[in-house]
Amino acid sequence: MAKFKLDDIDHQILEMLIDNTRVPFTDIAKKLVISAGTVHVRVKKMEEAGIIKGSSLTLDYKKLGYAFIAYVGVFLQKTSQTKFVLERINEIPYVTVAHITTGKFNVFCKIRAKNTEHAKDVIFMIDDIEGVYRTETMISLEESLNDKKRLMHSIFNNM
Amino acid sequence: MAKFKLDDIDHQILEMLIDNTRVPFTDIAKKLVISAGTVHVRVKKMEEAGIIKGSSLTLDYKKLGYAFIAYVGVFLQKTSQTKFVLERINEIPYVTVAHITTGKFNVFCKIRAKNTEHAKDVIFMIDDIEGVYRTETMISLEESLNDKKRLMHSIFNNM
Amino acid sequence: MAKFKLDDIDHQILEMLIDNTRVPFTDIAKKLVISAGTVHVRVKKMEEAGIIKGSSLTLDYKKLGYAFIAYVGVFLQKTSQTKFVLERINEIPYVTVAHITTGKFNVFCKIRAKNTEHAKDVIFMIDDIEGVYRTETMISLEESLNDKKRLMHSIFNNM
Amino acid sequence: MAKFKLDDIDHQILEMLIDNTRVPFTDIAKKLVISAGTVHVRVKKMEEAGIIKGSSLTLDYKKLGYAFIAYVGVFLQKTSQTKFVLERINEIPYVTVAHITTGKFNVFCKIRAKNTEHAKDVIFMIDDIEGVYRTETMISLEESLNDKKRLMHSIFNNM
Amino acid sequence: MAKFKLDDIDHQILEMLIDNTRVPFTDIAKKLVISAGTVHVRVKKMEEAGIIKGSSLTLDYKKLGYAFIAYVGVFLQKTSQTKFVLERINEIPYVTVAHITTGKFNVFCKIRAKNTEHAKDVIFMIDDIEGVYRTETMISLEESLNDKKRLMHSIFNNM
Amino acid sequence: MAKFKLDDIDHQILEMLIDNTRVPFTDIAKKLVISAGTVHVRVKKMEEAGIIKGSSLTLDYKKLGYAFIAYVGVFLQKTSQTKFVLERINEIPYVTVAHITTGKFNVFCKIRAKNTEHAKDVIFMIDDIEGVYRTETMISLEESLNDKKRLMHSIFNNM
Amino acid sequence: MAKFKLDDIDHQILEMLIDNTRVPFTDIAKKLVISAGTVHVRVKKMEEAGIIKGSSLTLDYKKLGYAFIAYVGVFLQKTSQTKFVLERINEIPYVTVAHITTGKFNVFCKIRAKNTEHAKDVIFMIDDIEGVYRTETMISLEESLNDKKRLMHSIFNNM
Amino acid sequence: MAKFKLDDIDHQILEMLIDNTRVPFTDIAKKLVISAGTVHVRVKKMEEAGIIKGSSLTLDYKKLGYAFIAYVGVFLQKTSQTKFVLERINEIPYVTVAHITTGKFNVFCKIRAKNTEHAKDVIFMIDDIEGVYRTETMISLEESLNDKKRLMHSIFNNM
Repeated sequence: MAKFKLDDIDHQILEMLIDNTRVPFTDIAKKLVISAGTVHVRVKKMEEAGIIKGSSLTLDYKKLGYAFIAYVGVFLQKTSQTKFVLERINEIPYVTVAHITTGKFNVFCKIRAKNTEHAKDVIFMIDDIEGVYRTETMISLEESLNDKKRLMHSIFNNM
Repeated sequence: MAKFKLDDIDHQILEMLIDNTRVPFTDIAKKLVISAGTVHVRVKKMEEAGIIKGSSLTLDYKKLGYAFIAYVGVFLQKTSQTKFVLERINEIPYVTVAHITTGKFNVFCKIRAKNTEHAKDVIFMIDDIEGVYRTETMISLEESLNDKKRLMHSIFNNM
Repeated sequence: MAKFKLDDIDHQILEMLIDNTRVPFTDIAKKLVISAGTVHVRVKKMEEAGIIKGSSLTLDYKKLGYAFIAYVGVFLQKTSQTKFVLERINEIPYVTVAHITTGKFNVFCKIRAKNTEHAKDVIFMIDDIEGVYRTETMISLEESLNDKKRLMHSIFNNM
Repeated sequence: MAKFKLDDIDHQILEMLIDNTRVPFTDIAKKLVISAGTVHVRVKKMEEAGIIKGSSLTLDYKKLGYAFIAYVGVFLQKTSQTKFVLERINEIPYVTVAHITTGKFNVFCKIRAKNTEHAKDVIFMIDDIEGVYRTETMISLEESLNDKKRLMHSIFNNM
Repeated sequence: MAKFKLDDIDHQILEMLIDNTRVPFTDIAKKLVISAGTVHVRVKKMEEAGIIKGSSLTLDYKKLGYAFIAYVGVFLQKTSQTKFVLERINEIPYVTVAHITTGKFNVFCKIRAKNTEHAKDVIFMIDDIEGVYRTETMISLEESLNDKKRLMHSIFNNM
Repeated sequence: MAKFKLDDIDHQILEMLIDNTRVPFTDIAKKLVISAGTVHVRVKKMEEAGIIKGSSLTLDYKKLGYAFIAYVGVFLQKTSQTKFVLERINEIPYVTVAHITTGKFNVFCKIRAKNTEHAKDVIFMIDDIEGVYRTETMISLEESLNDKKRLMHSIFNNM
Repeated sequence: MAKFKLDDIDHQILEMLIDNTRVPFTDIAKKLVISAGTVHVRVKKMEEAGIIKGSSLTLDYKKLGYAFIAYVGVFLQKTSQTKFVLERINEIPYVTVAHITTGKFNVFCKIRAKNTEHAKDVIFMIDDIEGVYRTETMISLEESLNDKKRLMHSIFNNM
Repeated sequence: MAKFKLDDIDHQILEMLIDNTRVPFTDIAKKLVISAGTVHVRVKKMEEAGIIKGSSLTLDYKKLGYAFIAYVGVFLQKTSQTKFVLERINEIPYVTVAHITTGKFNVFCKIRAKNTEHAKDVIFMIDDIEGVYRTETMISLEESLNDKKRLMHSIFNNM
């Protein structure tokens, strides 16, 4: 788990990209008083090192009709089925996050659905995977916070 | 909760941006055989309608030394403190997600930390917020899935 | 708790009213080959004895925009507050049923709301009653059965 | 889920029927200063639209010897059995309500019985349904509230 | 469940026997100013009516080397096995009480054992009964009260 | 905790008394071919040593109108209140057994009541004791076993 | 379970060895003003009686890269498998303690691992043992106390 | 958390000390064909580096009259009291291990006591610490494994 060494220039480039992934490299270059080519090389290197894995669009799911969020705890019949079950879960697009966890659940998922009825269908898809023994659902009444930018800035400030 | 009407061109633009938020508008234009100006106008409209809320960088937190993920269930003394507590939680950068939930917890958070010791510190920060009565933590042993792209594609395919 | 004695005619009148509370007494009289006056007297007597407490309309709450059903378990700070809390709960029209229960909850309620957001508001109304310590919510994904007619027929068949 | 449009006259008719399902249409007509025929047509239309699904008699179950109320949480072996189990539950007249739920139970029922011994029999009937894995029972010590009229009035007042 | 009618003399006889089952009938007779024969007849009648089912010696189990008390909750695989399992439990002399219960357990037992090690053996005997799925044990740290005499006196005072 | 030494004669006397506390000493003497005086002396000695603490009548509580049995788990605010709370519990005649326990409850009680309504009153009496924080109730659907005689015989056979 | 009788000299020898198992017998002899031979004989006798079972090195596991401690509760399919499962657990060196317990778990283990990922592997090893039905893990955020010396001194002071 | 570098000689010395902390350095020297002085220097260095923190005697607690082991989960009123409570717990010699944990408990302890009664006293000592809100106890029916030697050997074999 040897860490890739990021220098101050890298940090500043990342800081700008975190705030807006679509910022042109020429803007970054101007701000940091370096050449656009340098920005390009640095970003490429961070991508090759696997530090930047990509970028994702932040959509308003409520406006798209997907206002329902729930967390689903999954109990397996045998932990040896974990890999197989995770592959099946991966085929359900409404599951956006899945973790192997400690505590009472074997796998813990986050789902997004249109409404109560659709959520029931998604939960039943998970329940019907071979090897899934039981599920327990906790429903979100409000997504009050969903923001990794504060974390990213904090990481680079502390480095 | 009236839904903004997206047409087929909008969907195709979104599909391309979902896969790569940094794709140049000229590339989108070429692919969809429309002008770059049209792409620009459409994206602007979707941003103004609040459907596109922004974009975020996907970093490899493990490589950045933040390999520890946990879910923290928060019990409040009184639900009337919910708003106040969420504001305090919002000040802790290591909390990346927070929901008001049904079930046994009042608030349910996701945290990222460097290691067990750092996680303890973050949990104690939450525990020390006025109005927080108790917390319960579930630790992720592996983040097996964290991907909203499949959901986004599924939404536009079903529209 | 001495039981009012219902005879066979009473049972048959009740059986017809259970199926349709609006059935005219003359129809009941014709069917049972008794006078409409007798039906009237019998029903009056059952009302006075408190056996018939009234009648209620069965509406389709989904069509009225109230599709969300949840069960809310309430923990009190002291059971001596039970009566006071139940009076406050009684002022919230979205709570349709409330029981004092054994097991982990002190009071157990059924609520109907418009959607997740409205449900949150209703739950917060309960949470904010003085003497309520905490609540736990279980959400209905589908109301599969809500029918007392089978019970009523069974009671009169077994009498 | 397009909502049937109810106008003010409909609301007022419903308000009167909610309070007494047996009120003659001529009384409603007189009160609202419309013809009895109009009342008839309006009610018919609301029945055809499925908004009015019927009416039910409110009996005093205690006086009929059915004083015992319990909530029974049902765990299934597989959620694919949900439909089958609900059909079996539907054959037990002592189960008056059944929901598919989130949280720890798959199905959640309300039962009415004569006494502890009879409740045991009813619970055992549920337990013996094929596909039912386990049940958990919570007993009502007092039905403090069971009233949908406040909700109905609130719905029409808020429309 | 028609109740046998006990008169005041019966109550007073029971009151004396409750305090000391070995009190001679002549002493009771003298105290109540009736004949010993009457006492005899009354006690016989109460035994035949099944009100008096017998008497039991109160031993000091600690002094006999059986200081360990535990409550064992039993989960069954199927409730249809309840009768069979209770018969097997009945063959273990260290189980002194067993109930069919509501809540999370199917059967709830009280056991007395010599010490931790012996308790483990007794719990394993229960666990090994066919149809028993799992058990959960709660250990008594002190038997602070075990006395039905107060109840008996209260019953006769309230009659 | 030195154990009083019981010899074979003591065991045989106890065995007879266990089966019937009212058996005359002359019958015991005849059966064991010893003098009635010896029986008297032995019993006296066992009473003085505290091994025999008394005897109790076994009544049919169902026939006496006390058919309802429940177990009540008590949570205290502070364990330092244990002694005080147990003294208050001791004043409620419907509580027949109380233990200080491990696991989630501080004190665990057995109660007998007339019916659901009376049980509610008894539970509320416990809930209202100063220092009691919360209670959880588990209801007995059937008392399948309540017999210490098998244990007593087993003890003397194993000695 | 007859206790070996330790005299005052034995206590003092043990007290010194508890503080430092490597203390030379000649040092103990000098301090207690007895011969080294006597120390040797006494220690031998305590070893033969099984009171001293050995000695163990106290290493700093954090410095050795094993900073992760967790408690794992194990549920078995049948308690008759307890012995077999414990033998398999005994083959996993990362499990340092295992108990048969009351309460919800059948077996309760303490594990030490390198980090979250390694802990997952160790937990999966336990999960994969035949007869293990499910496990639940609780993670240590800090080992605040691990010291039997205070207990040992207390035992000898109280003897 | 930089790791001290142990070479092969260090490993072999540790391996021998793990099996018997009292093995003379001359024996180690002979076995590894190095001088006793070298052994001495190496051990000293490992002690100074904090890798070897000491050694502890393994006594048979059963034979010493301390056969009762329990795990006690502690809930605090506020996590800010953690440090204070741990200092108080540290004053109770019967608590041999204490961890700050994730999951439902704030602190998790292991205790050793003479018997049920003594365990009650120890649990009450913990319960009476200021800031302790509640405790939950799980009792060990058998200590099936308590051995860190397998772990130590495994660590050095894997290095």
